[in-house]
Amino acid sequence: MTRKELIQQIKNKKSFLAIGLDTDINKIPKHLLSMEDPVFEFNKQIIDATKDLCVSYKINTAFYESRGIAGWKSLIKTVNYLPKDIFSIADAKRGDIGNTSAMYADAFFNEESSDMSFDAVTVAPYMGKDSVTPFLKYDDKWVILLALTSNEGAKDFQFTKNEEGFLFEKVLKTSQLWANDHNMMYVVGATRGEAFLEIRKHAPNHFLLVPGVGAQGGSLADVCKYGMNKDCGLLVNSSRAIIYASSSEDFAAAARVEAQKVQAEMKEELRAIGF
Amino acid sequence: MTRKELIQQIKNKKSFLAIGLDTDINKIPKHLLSMEDPVFEFNKQIIDATKDLCVSYKINTAFYESRGIAGWKSLIKTVNYLPKDIFSIADAKRGDIGNTSAMYADAFFNEESSDMSFDAVTVAPYMGKDSVTPFLKYDDKWVILLALTSNEGAKDFQFTKNEEGFLFEKVLKTSQLWANDHNMMYVVGATRGEAFLEIRKHAPNHFLLVPGVGAQGGSLADVCKYGMNKDCGLLVNSSRAIIYASSSEDFAAAARVEAQKVQAEMKEELRAIGF
Repeated sequence: MTRKELIQQIKNKKSFLAIGLDTDINKIPKHLLSMEDPVFEFNKQIIDATKDLCVSYKINTAFYESRGIAGWKSLIKTVNYLPKDIFSIADAKRGDIGNTSAMYADAFFNEESSDMSFDAVTVAPYMGKDSVTPFLKYDDKWVILLALTSNEGAKDFQFTKNEEGFLFEKVLKTSQLWANDHNMMYVVGATRGEAFLEIRKHAPNHFLLVPGVGAQGGSLADVCKYGMNKDCGLLVNSSRAIIYASSSEDFAAAARVEAQKVQAEMKEELRAIGF
Repeated sequence: MTRKELIQQIKNKKSFLAIGLDTDINKIPKHLLSMEDPVFEFNKQIIDATKDLCVSYKINTAFYESRGIAGWKSLIKTVNYLPKDIFSIADAKRGDIGNTSAMYADAFFNEESSDMSFDAVTVAPYMGKDSVTPFLKYDDKWVILLALTSNEGAKDFQFTKNEEGFLFEKVLKTSQLWANDHNMMYVVGATRGEAFLEIRKHAPNHFLLVPGVGAQGGSLADVCKYGMNKDCGLLVNSSRAIIYASSSEDFAAAARVEAQKVQAEMKEELRAIGF
C-alpha cells in the first residue's frame, strides 16, 4: 500500500486505528475452542465486526509461532482474510544480517514463497543498515523500525545518551539515510506524549506506529497533541482493550463497541487537521 | 542443557563447533528436490555426517519461515531429529515486550505448545530487560543475546559511544544484572579477533557464540587467542562453508570433510587449555 492510499483510507474512515490481533488461545471465548481453528475463527469475527472502523490490523507473530504449525496456519489464514484495502502489519520485530533479513522479507512480503503478503513488518534496529534494507526492496511495502518502545525495558538502551542525543534519536536519524517516509515508519511508544516532540524534530513527516494506548497506559489525546502531522502521520494500535472486551459469545460485538469509542475520538482529532 | 554438560561435551568431542543449518532450498543439491521434504532430508544427512564433530547445531529460523507452512514443518522435523546431547540453538533474533517475549519463549522452548524445544534462542537487546527475562524462566535453557555482530551494519549503532563505553559494552554489562553465565551467552562477531579483548573484560566467564568464521571472513586462531577462557567459553559457528561444501550427491560427505578440518584446528586450540 502506498502512503497516498493509506492517507486516503484515514480520510475515508475518519480513523487511524490499528487493531492488534494478539490472539491468545487461552484468552478467547470458550465456545470457540470446539472449532477447527479457534484462533482464526476469533480473528475472522473480530475483523468482520471492526473493519470499517480501523485502517490497519497488526498481527503479533509471537502469539501464532507459540503454537507451532497450528499457529502458523492460523496466521496465514488470518493474513489472507484481511481486506486488501486495509494496511496489514506483521509485528515480528525481525532483523538479521543481509542474506537472513532477505529471507525474513520473503516470509512476510513474498506470497509465492510463504503464502503471506503483509504491507509492513516491524524490524529491530540493533544490527544496522544491512539488516533493514532487504525489506525495502519490495514496492509499496514498509519497514516499521523500532525507535522508542513503550515497555519498561526501553530505558535500558534506547535512552543511552551521548553528544548526538539518545540512541533512539540516532536510530531515527541514521535510518533516514536508508529509507524515506514512503517506505519506513517508526514504532514510538505512547506512555509519555511529550516524547513525540523529540520524535517529530527528527521525523516530521513519517508515519509513527504507536502501541501502548489503552492497556499499556498511554493517552490518545496526548499522542495526537504532540505527534500528529498534516497527513495525520499516526497509526495508533489497540489490542487487548478491543479484542478482549468480552469473553462471551458477544465478543465481536463488544470489540466493535470499543473500536467505535476509539474511532469517535480519532474522528475529532482528525477534524482538527481538516480530514 | 547445563553449562557443565556443554563443557563436558566439548571435552569429549574436542570440538566447540556449531554447525549452522541455514538451509536454503535454492542451494541444496538438485537430486533432493523430488523428495517429500527436501530441506529436512538435506539437514538429516548433514546431521548424520557431522554429529560427532560438532557440539551444537544452530538453526536460522528465517530460512524456514520464508517457506511458510512447508518451512515450519521442515524446522520442527529438524529440531526433533537433533541428538539430545547436542546443544540446539534457534537463531531467531527475537525480542518484544514481556507478554510477547513469553510467547516467543513458548515457541522455542515449550515442546507442549510448539512441538519444539531448543536449548537456546538468540535475542535482540534493543527493547531491554523485560524483552529478555521471559526466556530465562526455563531451567537449563539459554538466552544468547546479541552484543557485537559480524555484519557491516554493526557499526551503525553497536559502536555508539559515551562515557560508559560502546553500546555493545553496555549490553554486556547491563544484561548481567538479569542473567548469569549459566543461562546467558553472547553473540560476538569474529571479523576482528582483537574485539574479544574488550568483550572478555566485561564477560570473562560467559560462553560466546561466534558467527563470521569462514564465509564472513574471521580467523579461528584469532578468536581463540583473544576469546577463549579456561572453560573454552566459545561456540564457533560455521554455516555455508560446511553445509554447501558440495552441491552434488556427495554433499554430506563433503560437509564432513569441512567439519573435520575445523574440528582438527579446534582440537589443537583446546589442547592449549588442557581439554
